[in-house]
Amino acid sequence: MITRMSELFLRTLRDDPADAEVPSHKLLIRAGYVRPVAPGLYTWLPLGLRVLRKVEKIVREEMVAISGQEILFPALLPKAPYETTNRWTEYGDGVFRLKDRRMNDYMLGPTHEEFFTLTVKGEYSSYKDFPLVLFQIQTKYRDEARPRAGILRGREFVMKDSYSFDVDDDGLKTAYHAHREAYQKMFKRMAIRYVIVSAVSGAMGGSASEEFLAESEVGEDTFVRCLQSGYAANVEAVITAVPESLPLEGLPDATVYDTPDTATIAALVEWANSADLGREVAAADTLKNVLLKTRVPGGEWELLAIGVPGDREVDDKRLGAALEPAEYTLLDDADFARHPFLKKGYIGPKSLLANGVRYLVDPRVVDGTTWITGADETGKHVVGLVAGRDFVADGTIEAAEVRDGDLSPDGAGPLVSARGIEIGHIFQLGRKYTDAFSADVLGEDGKPVRLTMGSYGVGVSRLVAVIAEQQHDELGLRWPSSVAPFDVHVVIANKDAQARTGAEELTRDLDRLGLDVLLDDRTASPGVKFKDAELLGVPWIVVVGRGWADGVVELRNRFTGDRREISVDGAASAVHAACREV
Amino acid sequence: MITRMSELFLRTLRDDPADAEVPSHKLLIRAGYVRPVAPGLYTWLPLGLRVLRKVEKIVREEMVAISGQEILFPALLPKAPYETTNRWTEYGDGVFRLKDRRMNDYMLGPTHEEFFTLTVKGEYSSYKDFPLVLFQIQTKYRDEARPRAGILRGREFVMKDSYSFDVDDDGLKTAYHAHREAYQKMFKRMAIRYVIVSAVSGAMGGSASEEFLAESEVGEDTFVRCLQSGYAANVEAVITAVPESLPLEGLPDATVYDTPDTATIAALVEWANSADLGREVAAADTLKNVLLKTRVPGGEWELLAIGVPGDREVDDKRLGAALEPAEYTLLDDADFARHPFLKKGYIGPKSLLANGVRYLVDPRVVDGTTWITGADETGKHVVGLVAGRDFVADGTIEAAEVRDGDLSPDGAGPLVSARGIEIGHIFQLGRKYTDAFSADVLGEDGKPVRLTMGSYGVGVSRLVAVIAEQQHDELGLRWPSSVAPFDVHVVIANKDAQARTGAEELTRDLDRLGLDVLLDDRTASPGVKFKDAELLGVPWIVVVGRGWADGVVELRNRFTGDRREISVDGAASAVHAACREV
Repeated sequence: MITRMSELFLRTLRDDPADAEVPSHKLLIRAGYVRPVAPGLYTWLPLGLRVLRKVEKIVREEMVAISGQEILFPALLPKAPYETTNRWTEYGDGVFRLKDRRMNDYMLGPTHEEFFTLTVKGEYSSYKDFPLVLFQIQTKYRDEARPRAGILRGREFVMKDSYSFDVDDDGLKTAYHAHREAYQKMFKRMAIRYVIVSAVSGAMGGSASEEFLAESEVGEDTFVRCLQSGYAANVEAVITAVPESLPLEGLPDATVYDTPDTATIAALVEWANSADLGREVAAADTLKNVLLKTRVPGGEWELLAIGVPGDREVDDKRLGAALEPAEYTLLDDADFARHPFLKKGYIGPKSLLANGVRYLVDPRVVDGTTWITGADETGKHVVGLVAGRDFVADGTIEAAEVRDGDLSPDGAGPLVSARGIEIGHIFQLGRKYTDAFSADVLGEDGKPVRLTMGSYGVGVSRLVAVIAEQQHDELGLRWPSSVAPFDVHVVIANKDAQARTGAEELTRDLDRLGLDVLLDDRTASPGVKFKDAELLGVPWIVVVGRGWADGVVELRNRFTGDRREISVDGAASAVHAACREV
Repeated sequence: MITRMSELFLRTLRDDPADAEVPSHKLLIRAGYVRPVAPGLYTWLPLGLRVLRKVEKIVREEMVAISGQEILFPALLPKAPYETTNRWTEYGDGVFRLKDRRMNDYMLGPTHEEFFTLTVKGEYSSYKDFPLVLFQIQTKYRDEARPRAGILRGREFVMKDSYSFDVDDDGLKTAYHAHREAYQKMFKRMAIRYVIVSAVSGAMGGSASEEFLAESEVGEDTFVRCLQSGYAANVEAVITAVPESLPLEGLPDATVYDTPDTATIAALVEWANSADLGREVAAADTLKNVLLKTRVPGGEWELLAIGVPGDREVDDKRLGAALEPAEYTLLDDADFARHPFLKKGYIGPKSLLANGVRYLVDPRVVDGTTWITGADETGKHVVGLVAGRDFVADGTIEAAEVRDGDLSPDGAGPLVSARGIEIGHIFQLGRKYTDAFSADVLGEDGKPVRLTMGSYGVGVSRLVAVIAEQQHDELGLRWPSSVAPFDVHVVIANKDAQARTGAEELTRDLDRLGLDVLLDDRTASPGVKFKDAELLGVPWIVVVGRGWADGVVELRNRFTGDRREISVDGAASAVHAACREV
């Protein structure tokens, strides 16, 4: 196919749009790939749509390669199935809701677990019909509180969502790993730099889950990884490296001290270092007990105490993930008043355990570790309290913040944090949705089997921005061949009629070789054309310029910046070879 | 590609779904092409999605062939541009509306004139950028009062909408005719039987407009056509064949008669035939004057009288189209009381014209025609009132009903009515939207030029149902090759292991020849498999059955029902040739 810039619906912009924050957003607008319609709503112009379709095609091919079967649901979805799973309520403000003329409730679907489950239940009835993987590439909606960064986080976007259905856990694991590999292949084909991180599943329910995060400074997700071992995880999913237990024998007895005005860790550490304890004390030597109340859905509020080393904060995201599906809140003054044994600023394990408060500690609080902590009386702390000897907690909890330099759980080296953009997510949902809809089939033994389910997503339209974000340079976009809007961009940079004719001929030859060619046949100056070519980011640029008279054209590699002259004779096949080598 | 029925997500149904009214709806559900999710909302299962994508591809190819450039707008659209054109109000209950979390208003777009106009205005500024044709293949929404007939009239559906932009009327005409031809080509490729009818443009505004109606008894649109000349039109757009004027000379004078109790046409005709008028009188010889009041948007109510031959009713649709954009209503008793010169049941032209009431007559009321009509006194009529001699109306109006047997406006023969399904619509919108948004560009003379615009739609998802509706037979669906989900359906109808192996080999050979093959490798009985093959409607069916032992397979043509045996040697190329010949 030949596309002429003189006819292409395209206007590039010299300046960055005022409201664009991140490079991909700026460049996709400047280069005429997308245009804003409203916050978080974008129009795909011809070049952008070409890239989107190529991304879609790669995603589709890799899904078909793992025997995924494509179907297509409406975006406008009735309320009832979401009520069955309680997601009609749980989604809160995050989705678009509307009523039809008969005042029936609808949602613009943010994801389709309910409907896939119902559909499979409706069609299939025997174990023989499984395994089954269904997918769709479909337009989804979320009423983001703060749509941002262009198509990186829009309110209407294209996703591939797929769902696996199996009669047993092994089947689910197989489907999960097939998706994992399919995702690795598709992202590799798009030349995306990414990490796979352990994730908690959040509102989706279920257990094993990983996220594919594209590495990017503008990403909204923080993850940590160990460069030595390759371990990577979402902050919520990091497992603390647990030190070895220490022998309890021979440790000195715990002693209670008067420690007036030491309700904060800083004040306590200052006191400890001014007292004559025989060693330097740091915040990490203190045990901070944080009081919460938690409630499982439909249940009663219960007290929960969390003990963490005094140098660490409790991380809201990690705490939320650890307690899910329970909700939680800090205790207020009224709560403290109701429980007088809780001496604010001086709470210790002893009184918590004596009063039956559930007490979970950071995994670092192993047996034999010695702590300075509250003595359950205002103005008093205990020094030398030994875990496993003086108190035994009810369990551990992954709630303390993760810090750069923390040891990787595999012990291979320190963790470092980085930012990423979620591009894929794979879940072993299990039976959450099939339980909700009683999705059973007849098993091999003639008895009903409850189906087990996986849910897998790829942010198709977001990938366009992610690739732009990772690949651009200061001159503009740079598309990998697999997703580029064109294979080659021929720039006529010579007003000579013969050169022009030659460029047209070369373009036709490239088209005949099966390449998608963008021909800059405009009357603009060579400078304007070169700038546009760099901005648009087609991976190979052929300049028909001054060299034409000497029988050469220039072939530029948009990625490396390499330029080389090639002979006009055989130019088409040389360009073809270059395009196909990447 | 090879698709195995043993793995395909498909369950065919033996019985018609209870709520399905029309054959295409029943068959598309029974054959597992679509499934209902809610009224007017359907899921495309694998087979249905394959047909939908093939229809999309044909539409896209024909749009690209007329230099259409594809872009893609969101479905979720902000209110403001629709307010500018007043369509936010005009759409009434017919669209889905919603608010986002900031309480801003949005619509699920039923059509995108406003946004295409704004986009072109935003990007382009010179006459040199035109002509321009932009299109999208996009999901649209309408909150139908009565969604019906499955995907024939859904609430979420896929449309191709395109818009042409030109700097002059000749450009618009060229774009309009290019679309007309592109539509003819695409519908021909899908083997659709259709007519192009003149149409009025309704709420879209603008002037020249035609509809493409697929012939179908289940269609909601009535049109008339002349089988002799090929003339066809929507009922609203039919132009009355006007008889020649007659000489006024020598006609007897009009006479007023006492006609008590003749306020209806039937009573008047009965009176006329009992009076001694010297001839047989029919309802068509009377002139019925219908009183309305009309109001242009923002204007005052005005009286309007319409005179039609007494044998015809005023057709609401035709009247509405003729008066548009004015609204109208019949006079009530209070109105009659306010205008005592209007003697209900006895109204004649004389008093209307004398009192300054605007008076429009049916085009058949030509000069020299003689009428029996009201004499403007209760209980009196006038006989022998001659148009052009005794009264001269203010003009004519196309408001009388159209009837089978009426003469075609080209005089070639009688009109016959038929029903159709709208599959395409082309409009010369003109400057309605470019005026609303002041979409000007710099003209060749350096002065601003207001753009002129065309709007063109194709019901992409509806076409799937239309093809099913036109092509099915009593056994099931029958797809034309161009849109069939597969090229060929190989049915293994022999339990012999060798036959099975042979069928698999033949399938691989067909795949290698580039055909899309559906292989029925299930363990079901031959009878079940044949029934399914007929229901699914793949155009060619290869049966590997009893003949295998004799070295033959059977090739069935699903359209003609023809069956012929072909030798196993060379079967693949024979099937390939058959598939490609249609």
